[in-house]
Order: sequence, then structure tokens, then C-alpha cells
Amino acid sequence: MAITAWKSLANTKRQSTLDAIPEKWRIQEPIPSASELRDVTGPYIQKFLNPREIEITELDAYAIAEKTTTGEWTAVEVTEAFCHRAALAHQLVNCLHEIFFDAAIEDAKRLDAYFADHKKPLGPLHGLPISLKDQFHVKGVETTMGYVGWIGTFQGLKDDPRSRVFESELVRELRNLGAVLYCKTSVPSTLMCGETVNNIITYTNNPKNRLLACGGSSGGEGALIALKGSPGGFGTDIGGSVRIPAVFNGLFGIRPSAGRIPYEGAANSMDGQNTILSVIGPLAGTARSLQLLFKAVLGQQPWLYDPLVHEIPWRGEIEQETRALVEQSAKDPSKLAFAIMKHDGIVKPHPPIARALDMVEKTLEQLGHKVIEWTPPSHKTGVELANAAYNFDGGADVQYHFGISGEQPAPQLLVASGLPQKSASDIARVNVAKREYQKLYMEYWNSTSELTGTGRPVDAVICPAAPHAAVIPTQYTHVGYTSVINVLDYSSVVIPVTTVDKNVDLNVPREYLGELDEQSYKNYDADVYDGAPAGVQMFGRRLQEEKMLVLAEYVGSAVSSR
Amino acid sequence: MAITAWKSLANTKRQSTLDAIPEKWRIQEPIPSASELRDVTGPYIQKFLNPREIEITELDAYAIAEKTTTGEWTAVEVTEAFCHRAALAHQLVNCLHEIFFDAAIEDAKRLDAYFADHKKPLGPLHGLPISLKDQFHVKGVETTMGYVGWIGTFQGLKDDPRSRVFESELVRELRNLGAVLYCKTSVPSTLMCGETVNNIITYTNNPKNRLLACGGSSGGEGALIALKGSPGGFGTDIGGSVRIPAVFNGLFGIRPSAGRIPYEGAANSMDGQNTILSVIGPLAGTARSLQLLFKAVLGQQPWLYDPLVHEIPWRGEIEQETRALVEQSAKDPSKLAFAIMKHDGIVKPHPPIARALDMVEKTLEQLGHKVIEWTPPSHKTGVELANAAYNFDGGADVQYHFGISGEQPAPQLLVASGLPQKSASDIARVNVAKREYQKLYMEYWNSTSELTGTGRPVDAVICPAAPHAAVIPTQYTHVGYTSVINVLDYSSVVIPVTTVDKNVDLNVPREYLGELDEQSYKNYDADVYDGAPAGVQMFGRRLQEEKMLVLAEYVGSAVSSR
Repeated sequence: MAITAWKSLANTKRQSTLDAIPEKWRIQEPIPSASELRDVTGPYIQKFLNPREIEITELDAYAIAEKTTTGEWTAVEVTEAFCHRAALAHQLVNCLHEIFFDAAIEDAKRLDAYFADHKKPLGPLHGLPISLKDQFHVKGVETTMGYVGWIGTFQGLKDDPRSRVFESELVRELRNLGAVLYCKTSVPSTLMCGETVNNIITYTNNPKNRLLACGGSSGGEGALIALKGSPGGFGTDIGGSVRIPAVFNGLFGIRPSAGRIPYEGAANSMDGQNTILSVIGPLAGTARSLQLLFKAVLGQQPWLYDPLVHEIPWRGEIEQETRALVEQSAKDPSKLAFAIMKHDGIVKPHPPIARALDMVEKTLEQLGHKVIEWTPPSHKTGVELANAAYNFDGGADVQYHFGISGEQPAPQLLVASGLPQKSASDIARVNVAKREYQKLYMEYWNSTSELTGTGRPVDAVICPAAPHAAVIPTQYTHVGYTSVINVLDYSSVVIPVTTVDKNVDLNVPREYLGELDEQSYKNYDADVYDGAPAGVQMFGRRLQEEKMLVLAEYVGSAVSSR
Repeated sequence: MAITAWKSLANTKRQSTLDAIPEKWRIQEPIPSASELRDVTGPYIQKFLNPREIEITELDAYAIAEKTTTGEWTAVEVTEAFCHRAALAHQLVNCLHEIFFDAAIEDAKRLDAYFADHKKPLGPLHGLPISLKDQFHVKGVETTMGYVGWIGTFQGLKDDPRSRVFESELVRELRNLGAVLYCKTSVPSTLMCGETVNNIITYTNNPKNRLLACGGSSGGEGALIALKGSPGGFGTDIGGSVRIPAVFNGLFGIRPSAGRIPYEGAANSMDGQNTILSVIGPLAGTARSLQLLFKAVLGQQPWLYDPLVHEIPWRGEIEQETRALVEQSAKDPSKLAFAIMKHDGIVKPHPPIARALDMVEKTLEQLGHKVIEWTPPSHKTGVELANAAYNFDGGADVQYHFGISGEQPAPQLLVASGLPQKSASDIARVNVAKREYQKLYMEYWNSTSELTGTGRPVDAVICPAAPHAAVIPTQYTHVGYTSVINVLDYSSVVIPVTTVDKNVDLNVPREYLGELDEQSYKNYDADVYDGAPAGVQMFGRRLQEEKMLVLAEYVGSAVSSR
């Protein structure tokens, strides 16, 4: 009986999301199965769009904002095009939790009227559609965060006056900036998963290869943006949840250090665990679009509205310094130095990721940069610290939220149950160990100034974002490549590099670092992975977002132009 | 037997500190009792100094650095003068845990040689003696933090290789800056106390009125600087531990927001509790000296050496903007607006503090500034959050450290014992409640832009730092005036205003806010408090140290010139 009740609730919610798609935008023809047609981006989704819609939706956020903030394109036309394409995307890969196209078009009309009246845009994101992970509260719609028990509630609370009225701080700022909000994207319930699965939307597939995962927890964002149903959106990251879906979908995505983008008023998992804070970061098709979004939010002075945001405005001087280094390095490449870590000593990457790393390394070396080998303090220690923090409450928070409806969690979610809560002294010990690890890593970073030839430590470090390309469902076993960065609180960007090629990325036997490495490598199947995006992670020190965004643009464009 | 052992250990340590004072600097005459002579600052301590020593030690840190960084005065002469005066101070009020004058004079010689060689100072603190609270590790000496069990160990660990070798990050930076380190000052064991008492130094008295407490936990700093045995030093503050001793001793002191001054490698109590982080801040006789010390440390780029420090250099633009507001306000005082909170709704201040607040209010109003009434969200909530965080581990950490020697804690220390540890979920709930409180307070702050006439919210808020002047021993019952600021993570400076005058600050009957207020007021004894320093606290938003330091200089000098 109980099972029927939650299933029925989930089914109704799923149907109501589909019902929010206008009749005219529904796909009438049968959608080929994933084995018939892996990739539904590009030509497949374009079939359902007119040329003007394709023209609009295939520009990046940066280029769209250039047109919408100058009045060249109207907010309404752009919004309608993205609503249409997002509707198609959802029908292809189940990437949306909430659809509010009507409200978006009303907002777009107001923006057009504003432009007509004032002859200037409302803000730097005027008329730009922005998608949001389903942790952000937006008036008029729900936030379920993938929990059946949250349907019809506010974060699980019945009859809460904030329901469908309250907006998260970032949402308020995006509206101030002129962005148009039109949909919220799918997440795995708990948010602690590298795939996107829940009982409401079921499963979000990777649009480049629907046999594979879109990543998680900001998986709906990754899938939607890859299908160009959104030019950019905001996800959250406590262990890789922005970077994993970005890299799995061939996108750029940034995990900023804590304290830059306002989390205030967003729903979260295990809220109040403050050893490793979840952070918000944008995902988009280009690095310059990430910069646009990141810089725009900082322009709203979020530190006046979110007590956890540091008063650090967009530092144009760091941006300019970095751009100058990039420009100078065309003549004198010794101005910039990188490090590369081919594996973390725990799990070596699959062949496509190893190849992507080699491509980046060769590109940088061909450009003349010094690329040193990164031999940092043990990443195993970092992984253990991350896992300790994620498990402080022994699963109490997520068990509680699953328990509201009595729903059955998907097997990927690895939900802890009945484990003891850690005590204050236990947590304090982890906090001290984490700080000591951060200090050790910092000292290692400082020590590289002896090796770079620039007189400074390395400017950025390149490593895998995951051991594999967009993963085969249920086979994500090692999130350490991303989670260690959360322990360090470093600024990290993922950069798309290539796609898996089954004819190149061969499954050749090799020795294993250990059991986890063996398991991971045995899961590599070149045929299934074929066509999946493969990228890398590039990280900088804490609070180095301006620098990392400029370098991501440089490295990304250098790699893609080879 | 066991009691004898720890007492004997403590006595030996106490004696060894006294023995480190050169024979020539020992006070031979009997020191009058506190009831015979309350105030040992000024004429009394001067008796033991020659005119040149008095000339040197009675300048503020800023003025001394002007002379030592230009070569006008040698580091050795200045260091010797302060060593002498610190030795006297310790004999008068028990304010030192560690004395290392010989090492200091050696360091000073090296600095003088450096200046002679390079014709320039090593750094902005060249030749300036700086005292340190006994949480900072300095090579060659111990850190006991008031625990008998730490004698002969490294933070309680026997045979630890760091013992007498390791230096805290701030110590390293101070040496880089050219500061001369020569003594470490007394603290209450546990650090969680507004008085300074432990089994090693016994009790540190207030030098302005030895019947009273010097404050805590940076109490030795407060007492030493008040006696001008140090021109400035560094304390730490998790609930008021910089501000309380500063205000009790008629000094300036700043509690910066977390993440500005490096705590890395300093000993601490309940290390790893990260809901409310202890922070480091300087104490000194003038606001400009605080600025000098604060700015100098930031010049060392501590964010490259302490993973918890934010990359926020000294922001000259905020300093200049604030100075411009101050200068403009001479002509147009509507440029700056203040708020005043006469009491927190829990405990009203004693008459001398109420008078100090009135003096500041009148001064600001006479200067033409708008001073609005501060009616913030409940401070009771803030106090409860602070107390919750301080008690997460149920006393486990401090019990452990007392247990090493088996010593008996002083009654003021209110050491929890046998209380249950809080669980991860309990702690998470407090973290969420704290963030919500910070957000509420932030919104209230923002809302004052409607009232100030400057177009901005208030620039700073003035309130008590404690309900009383330098407190009568064992009568500190309400630390809420300072601890709420730690919950909010605001930048806060204390400003000396006046001294208690038993003929003015009369004990007149009044109504009580509640039991705690009644208890506090009944403890007011004008005769005993007579002569004690009475000051106020002035706080700004989070990370507004540059602004608060400039405003402290302005308000402090305005008040003292009336």
C-alpha cells in the first residue's frame, strides 16, 4: 500500500512536468532507443526546430547576451526558442523537474518592455535564459530535489508558507541581472551521486550517448546544456556535482571555492554539515560564458545578502594579470607553467581520459609551457577526509527525507542507514586533519616555484575529473578526483577535450594500482563508451576563480584548435 | 600525592619564569598590596625605569616603528627597554608565561646589523617588540596555555619533535616583518574565561586597579600592554578574548572576521570545533597601532601559508574611502552614520559603561552624525548559539587537558564535565540556526539604509563590550556582548572611553531585565570598580576590518579629545 502511494505520487508529478510542455512542442514520432541512436544532440534534436530557433540556441551564453543586452534580439524570441528546445531535451533524456515556460515568457515580455522604455538592458544577463538545478526555490513552482516526499511541500514541510513563494538568493540576483528563468533540472535524490536518478524523473541519460549517465548531481543541467536546451545554468558541488556532469557532457563547469556564489536560501542535502561546504557554480558550453555568469553574480554584491559569502568582488586585476600572462606567453611561453597529474595513485583513468590528458599535456608543451609532474601529498588521505565528512550523520538526513514518502532509493545512491552519528570530538578530529591536509598540500604547491621557471609556483594543475568518460550506469566507483578538490576548497574548472573513440581508446591489459583500480578498469568497455565526451579537470588554489576562468578559456581553446 | 605532583610542577614552572628575569630587573622593595595601591601603571612602574626607558616605552607601536624602521632608534635599545618594563610588569601582575629576553636581544642585534648593512629596515615592524599570547609556538620556549599538563610537552604530547622548535605561522610572519619577540603572555587554561587564572601563574591582576580582573582570555596581553611592557601584541578571540582584556585595560583591540590573520600552527582549545572559529587579533594602546600590525601581517600574504585565510589583502581603497568619509564629515557630518545599542535586552551595563556609551553617543551627535537606535534581532538567540557551539564536546577537550596533570581547575573556568557529546545532526542544526541568525541580522543591518540619511546602512554600531568595567574576580556572568559578535563573525574593535569614577557612577536602584541582569547589577560596587577602565565596543559587518580600524581611530580620538 505504502509503495503504491509513493509511486503514484511520483508518477503524477512526472506526468505533470510533461503536461507543462505545450502540445505544439511534444515529439509525436517514436524516439529511437539508445541502442538505435546514441546521440540525440545536433542533427537529431535540430529536426524539431526551425532554423531561427537553431540559430538562437546554438550560440553560447556570452554571444546571446551580446544580442539580448543590445536589443538586437528580443528576450521573448530567445526565451521561446530555449523553452522549445528544453521541452525537446526533456522528452529525449528526462532532464527537467520543473517547467515554467509561461512565467518565463511573461518575464521576457517585461524585459523587452524595459529595454524599449529605457533603451538599455536591465543588467548584464538581460534576456538570457538560465536553467537551475532543482535545489533553487523559484516562485510558482516546487522544489523536490528528487524526493517524492517533497512533492507538494517546502523541503518536506507541509503547509509551509514559503511553498511556491520563497525564492533563493541566487534566483533574486539572477532576476536583478535580467536573466530569464524557465526550468529546473533533474538531480539524484540525496545529491550524493555521480548519476542522476530518482523516483520522479526516473533516470537522466547522457544526450551524447544515451547508454551512459549524464553525471550528477547537477546531471539535468549537464544534459540540458549539452542538448542546447539552455545556454548556461547553475549547479552545486560538494564532491564533484558541477564538474562531473559538465565533463560528462562535454561542457565547461566551475567549482568555485566556498564563499563566492550565494547558497543562501537554496535547498540542500545534509544542510549544516560544515566541514565541506557545498558550493554553487555555473555550467556552460564555453569558458567565456562561465566568466559572464560568475562575474555577473558577483556584481550583485552577494556578501550583503548571504552571510557565508566573502566580500571579494570580481577581481578585474587578477583577470587582467592572467590575460597579460596568456598574451605574453605567445611570445614567451615560460610566463605560464602547469602541472599534470596522470592519476591519483588510487584509480588510473580509462584510455579515453588518459588520451585527453596527453592531448592537453602535448598542447601545452607544444605551446612552449613548462608542464611539471604533480606529485602531491596523498590523495588517499583526501578521499578519506571527504568520505568522513559526507558520513558524519550516518545517513540520518537522507533517511529522513526518503522516509517522508517511504520511497525506495535507487541502488546507485548508496544511502547509509543505521550507522552511528559521529560525535563532536570525532568531527573536530576530522576538521583538524582536514586543515592539516590543506596545509600540507599548500606547502607542496608553494614548493613548485623551484621547478616552474616562472619564479612562481605552478599556475594550474591538470588531472582527470573522473576515471572514465560519461559513466556506464551503476559503475561510478571512485569520485576521489573531484572530492579531494572539495576537501582542499580549491577553484576547479573542467574542460572538454575529446570524445571516446572505440578504434583508438583500446582496452589494453595493464597492471593495477589496487582493487578499486582493477574494478574500474574492468568496467571499461570501448564499444559502449564510444562517442562519450572526455575531458579533464584543471584546478587552481583557493579563491582563484578569476585566474582559473581565464586559463580555462586559454587551455580549452588551445586544445580544441589542435 | 597526585595533587602534590601537579602543584610542584606548576610551582617549578612559575619559578623558572621568574628566574628568567635578570637580577638587575628584579624589584627589591616590597610591592604594596592592591588595597594599598590599586594602580601600578604610570608613576609606580616608572619608578623602576630610567628616563630613556620611559621615553621609549611610552610611545605607541606606530611611533616606535617610525623610529626603528628609519634607524633613528636601534632595535637593541628598544628591545631592552621593553624587556625591562615587561619584567617589571610581570612582577606586578603575573602577566607572563614565557620570558626569552636573551633571544630577543640577539634578534635585535641581527636587525640592527641588517639595517646597518642594507640601510633599510627588514620590514614594516623592524625593531618593534611584539608580545604574544601563550598560544603561539616560539622556538626555544614552551607553550603551556595555562595547563600544568603541557609543561615540558608539545600541546600535552610528550617527546614530540616540535617541542621548543616549531613556530606558529604568525610568528614566522612577524619575524619576516622585523618584529622582535620577547615574551608570551598569560591566559586562563581552557581560554574560555573572561579572567586570567591558571595553576601556573595563578592570577593576572588588572594593573589599573589590581582589585580587578585583567580580562581574558588574552588577559596577559591586556595587562602587559596597559603597563606599557609591550607596545602591542596578538591575542585570540572566540567569545571576546581579545576585546575583553583590551577594554578592561583601557586599550584598543580588534576581533577581525575569521580568515584574515593566520591561526595556522597556533595551539588552541577545542581545536576542530568549526561552528565558531577562534580568530587572532592585535591589542595596542592606539588604533593606528592596530592598523600597523594588522596591515603588516596581511602584507605577508598569509593566504599562501594558512589554508583558512582568505585572499583579501589590506584593502587600501576601503581605508581611503573611509578616511575620505571621515574628512568630508568635518564639513558634512551626514556622510557617516552610527547606531547605538545601550543594552542587549539580557543584561544592562553598569553605570560606568552606560556613561561611556552616553559619552560616545553625545560626541558623535555633537560632531553632527546621525546616531540611530540599534534594535536588532534577538541577542538572546545569538548567546544561545554561541553557548551551544562552545559546549559541543561536553567538555571533553578541556577535561582531557586538565587530566594530563590531574590539576584542579580554578572555579571561574566553569569547566563542563561528563556532559554528553553533541551528535553530527545536533551540530548541523546549530550550524543552520546560526546561518539563519546571521542572515536575519544582515537583513536588519541592510534595512537601516532607510534611517541613516547617508543612503547606506549604518557605518558602525556601538554597544557595550561587557556589562561592567574590568570585572571583580569571579563576577563575570554575561559574555553575550562579545560572543554574539563571534556568532555573526563581524569585525569589532573596542575603544577606551573613560575610567570608573565612584563619585559619578553611582549605584542607583533600577528595574531589572531578568535574573541575570539583577545578579549583574547587584555585583556593581562603585568603590571597588573606582579607577577601572571603561570602554565600548564598535562593530562593523563581516570582513570590514579596514573600515573599522579607521573609524576606531576617528571615534577614539573624538571621544578622548572631549
